[in-house]
Amino acid sequence: MLMFGKEKRWLGSIVLLSLFLAVMSGCSPSGAGPGSAASPRAGRETLVQVSTIDAIINGVYDGVISLGALKEYGDFGIGTLAGLDGEMIGFDGDFYQVRADGIAYPVTDAMETPFAAVTCFDCDYEVELPQISSYEELEQFLDAALPTDNIFYAIKIEGTFSYMKTRSVPRQEKPYPPLVEVTAYQPVFEFSDVAGTIAGFKSPAYVSGVNVPGYHLHFLTEDSSAGGHVLDFSVQEAVVSVDYTSEFLMILPGEDSDFYQLDLTQDRQAELEQAEK
Amino acid sequence: MLMFGKEKRWLGSIVLLSLFLAVMSGCSPSGAGPGSAASPRAGRETLVQVSTIDAIINGVYDGVISLGALKEYGDFGIGTLAGLDGEMIGFDGDFYQVRADGIAYPVTDAMETPFAAVTCFDCDYEVELPQISSYEELEQFLDAALPTDNIFYAIKIEGTFSYMKTRSVPRQEKPYPPLVEVTAYQPVFEFSDVAGTIAGFKSPAYVSGVNVPGYHLHFLTEDSSAGGHVLDFSVQEAVVSVDYTSEFLMILPGEDSDFYQLDLTQDRQAELEQAEK
Repeated sequence: MLMFGKEKRWLGSIVLLSLFLAVMSGCSPSGAGPGSAASPRAGRETLVQVSTIDAIINGVYDGVISLGALKEYGDFGIGTLAGLDGEMIGFDGDFYQVRADGIAYPVTDAMETPFAAVTCFDCDYEVELPQISSYEELEQFLDAALPTDNIFYAIKIEGTFSYMKTRSVPRQEKPYPPLVEVTAYQPVFEFSDVAGTIAGFKSPAYVSGVNVPGYHLHFLTEDSSAGGHVLDFSVQEAVVSVDYTSEFLMILPGEDSDFYQLDLTQDRQAELEQAEK
Repeated sequence: MLMFGKEKRWLGSIVLLSLFLAVMSGCSPSGAGPGSAASPRAGRETLVQVSTIDAIINGVYDGVISLGALKEYGDFGIGTLAGLDGEMIGFDGDFYQVRADGIAYPVTDAMETPFAAVTCFDCDYEVELPQISSYEELEQFLDAALPTDNIFYAIKIEGTFSYMKTRSVPRQEKPYPPLVEVTAYQPVFEFSDVAGTIAGFKSPAYVSGVNVPGYHLHFLTEDSSAGGHVLDFSVQEAVVSVDYTSEFLMILPGEDSDFYQLDLTQDRQAELEQAEK
């Protein structure tokens, strides 16, 4: 009888502890509600970023953390893979790598990223888009719809696009060239009447040097076969969902990284615009 | 006997859960080791910042979070209080407010801060300082000693200072003036042969607009009676300890804040230097 009591006591402890651990790790389902802790290091309302955009502009392409670890911080996001091996896009917990051949491959947890941003996507605003005919028109539409320019937004657009233009980047070998040298010869892909999902972020102007100020969007076709970094598009029929995000966690590369030796005092905004557009 | 078993079982669960919660909240003692989660939202190696420096430069002085909540993220840091009511400094878990009268008052958990940065201080580098005779000399000494300009550092200097010059800021009423208008009439305090502690941060250049690039230090006398924002000093005998910090969590003000209406696209670096030096 005493043994039975002891066993049940431990069983009770383990159940309680497991329940607590489940709530504390990864993007828990909506039942946990907004504001619940998502991982031991970030809340659901936190945009979690690895490295800085200026490190990428300077050619720091070595992996910083594994995709397995990155996904602990969010089920939605964009980035690139170690060696600048393509454009990464993830939503609903599934992440893909669009390589220089334009094909989308599922990522593995063991792969690493040198630069990425993710969050647990909780929709705060959703609307059907009008027939937007350019990237710029989407920016104007969302700028007018969103409550402030001074927080972060995760943006998801699901639908059919009468036109979509993307690019990817080829994997680099050491010594790594700066990003503008890579994007000068980037493969570009065009799609007509394509169904799929745009995922990405709008970041405030004051994170210049840290992330891409303004909009940074990637695309994946509905059949998860192709996509890339979005250069331009026209909307046929699509719904935009936005997650308002007021917390920002940046995880910098470690002391064994080239990051430690960089001169990050220069303004690289002109180079960034050349590389991203 | 069954009741006893049940009671013990729940007691066991509660003890385990409490132990787990203790590890997960606040700066746990060194036993938890580096890398352990400090709070549900940040690790021990995370600098946690509330709002942005450019929001303060623009006069957004309303409280964003309580000191009680802030202390969950760290036992060490600097900042100001709601209404720009003085200079805040904290180390070893004790936080003080140096008001415009130059006197240091212990803060209460209910007080709020509009801008602060804290971390759990774990010493990574410690050295006895030479007889440094200015703020600039300390910057040169530490710049040469630290491994990179591209991460965050928490800096603590304990000892005796042959000279110390600080300032504080008087509490403001709405409509709040910009920071440079307040600091134009700031009270300045000078000390000779004073024992005490300097606490603050060195932040990378790329967080311009977000935090103070370079060094930002506050001071508290050994008897916790006075201090302020450090303008200049000479070291008689002191030891500097540095905590290398590669993660950065920024918590932005909510939608009810003036923060949402600010134009944060302007470079305020010149105004910042005028206000901080």
